[in-house]
Amino acid sequence: MERLKRVDWPTTLVTDEIKRVDQREDGFVRALRGGLGPAVAGAFCRGYKYPLSAAGAEMSAYLGARAEGDKAASKAPIPEEPEALSRHIKRLGYFYRADIVGISELPQWAVYSHDKEGNPVELSHQSAIVILVDQDYRTMRGSTGNDWISNAQGYLSYSTADFISCIMASYIRRLGYSARAHTVDNSRVVIPPLLLLAGVGEISRPGIVLNPFLGLRFKVAVVTTELPLLPDKPVDFGLQEFCRKCQKCAAGCPARAIPPGDTVVLNGYENWRLDVERCTKFRILNPNGDYCGRCIKVCPWNKPAGRLHDMARWMVAHTPWLDGFLIKMDSIIGYEEQDQAEKWWFDLEDIDGVLQPPGGRRA
Amino acid sequence: MERLKRVDWPTTLVTDEIKRVDQREDGFVRALRGGLGPAVAGAFCRGYKYPLSAAGAEMSAYLGARAEGDKAASKAPIPEEPEALSRHIKRLGYFYRADIVGISELPQWAVYSHDKEGNPVELSHQSAIVILVDQDYRTMRGSTGNDWISNAQGYLSYSTADFISCIMASYIRRLGYSARAHTVDNSRVVIPPLLLLAGVGEISRPGIVLNPFLGLRFKVAVVTTELPLLPDKPVDFGLQEFCRKCQKCAAGCPARAIPPGDTVVLNGYENWRLDVERCTKFRILNPNGDYCGRCIKVCPWNKPAGRLHDMARWMVAHTPWLDGFLIKMDSIIGYEEQDQAEKWWFDLEDIDGVLQPPGGRRA
Repeated sequence: MERLKRVDWPTTLVTDEIKRVDQREDGFVRALRGGLGPAVAGAFCRGYKYPLSAAGAEMSAYLGARAEGDKAASKAPIPEEPEALSRHIKRLGYFYRADIVGISELPQWAVYSHDKEGNPVELSHQSAIVILVDQDYRTMRGSTGNDWISNAQGYLSYSTADFISCIMASYIRRLGYSARAHTVDNSRVVIPPLLLLAGVGEISRPGIVLNPFLGLRFKVAVVTTELPLLPDKPVDFGLQEFCRKCQKCAAGCPARAIPPGDTVVLNGYENWRLDVERCTKFRILNPNGDYCGRCIKVCPWNKPAGRLHDMARWMVAHTPWLDGFLIKMDSIIGYEEQDQAEKWWFDLEDIDGVLQPPGGRRA
Repeated sequence: MERLKRVDWPTTLVTDEIKRVDQREDGFVRALRGGLGPAVAGAFCRGYKYPLSAAGAEMSAYLGARAEGDKAASKAPIPEEPEALSRHIKRLGYFYRADIVGISELPQWAVYSHDKEGNPVELSHQSAIVILVDQDYRTMRGSTGNDWISNAQGYLSYSTADFISCIMASYIRRLGYSARAHTVDNSRVVIPPLLLLAGVGEISRPGIVLNPFLGLRFKVAVVTTELPLLPDKPVDFGLQEFCRKCQKCAAGCPARAIPPGDTVVLNGYENWRLDVERCTKFRILNPNGDYCGRCIKVCPWNKPAGRLHDMARWMVAHTPWLDGFLIKMDSIIGYEEQDQAEKWWFDLEDIDGVLQPPGGRRA
């Protein structure tokens, strides 16, 4: 990450006119509250369809209860330079096996106005540490992206990032500075803009942030804190032009939620036009799997580490007229195919509390 | 691990005459109960000296409360062949980012007779899954092995392995098979023999199990279960002869707890003669750091991944007459030196609840 081109502003427009968002408007919270219709709310309330996603979600919920705490009464005798503290905190994140750690300021518009229950949110921390955890490339190789392992892959990354964020927040509080973990179940912040500001990625066609090394194949937890940190700068690795040309996620989306068109500006942000409702509905109702991450799977940035892929990354940033060639090569090599040899999980569906071979509900 | 030479019995004697051990005889439990004198018990009760080990230990304690649970009422429709289930469970461990996963049977003599509080222990599971997590090679490079980060490195691995074990146990229970996680704070099993039986390492001079890829630089959590699994076999990678010749841990031990002599048989096990009392006392009272892992640091097996080290591993297994040469090369290259550029943490000591520069207590 240290060698990427840093820029003063994100490559997509982020204005000062952004209004704070109510967490009740979040896709899944709306689904739960019936905003996407009774079938979706019913499916959501029935709970997890797959035992491994259930185990990961159980852990995330358990960790979410550990997000907050009191800081130590006195400050530890540590350096006060934001640069040294940022280096320290990032190394701590990597020590605890995070895949990518970035730091951003925490603008007030990135704090929810109200939480899921409708209580007003106040959070005065000035810094946010974003912790990215991979959803496992090998498992993604074995998957179609929208089969039974999809949600478990999400929870692999959520629960692991939640675990790291809780330990990091506890450590910072022990140093005498307030800090709060924001886990998948217990968050007070809107994560995508923090990822842009921390320079861990650019907005991509599916409307979510893409990291040049992980693609879309990650989830995030955040630690906000009053510890004085030096924010990273946004990155530009050539993604906007790449996403304009590449339509693989739009073509591959089983929910038809990703349109082929251009970006729009909404609530002060520039973004591609994901149909959040369609996406959320499909993920919850998916009859042939547990959620969906097909866009993650088919994205040409879904690659393991390696020199060849380092070279391709360099080309997107420096020779954008070759993007089309790279996109075609990606198809020829067949990266988006499923590799059955890597399918290590069992297909199972929880129907009324009993695990069954999938499809039983419709039989 | 899959390419190592497997043998029918561990390379050190493990007889049928082993008696079950009372957890109250464990070094740290004895220390807490005053068995190593009031100074040690007092220091132990004062709690964690370093804020990062405290944060890791807090997490491990929190996870320990999640070790058990009820299994699902009915069994999931999954294959019943132990081989397929073992492959599945190992891939699950690697999916959740374990460094090494092994499977052993669970002999009754590896179950504690009584827990820390003196209650009789019963555990009828027939299989044990051992989950190894690295203590971070780069951090070990920056450390002396017995300075302020030592205990935090231990808790990095404990808390991460605990996290994985709790999710794995929950998942197995959801499949309809009873399973229990054994975390650093909440364990019913004696771990070292399980590591030998699962073939993740051999007993080494400091009396603990050494893995050929991680050296001594790991901690373990265990999941025991009634799920039918195929045990791995013990390994022989040439360690017994190597440890006989190499005396680096004995020479480097600041507690003089590791003698240069040969193995002995005690309670039916063959082992090198670590002075557990000296070791435990030093770790708890260490005036210039938080615990101690100097033997981990100076061990020639403390190496990162790489072809050169693959070659050295091959030589120990196949050309043992060159062990002396390898041991000398290790000293010449200076692997046991501290690399100050990798020291990313701050030296701090918690004295009566206030973090201070170390040495304050004696000033």
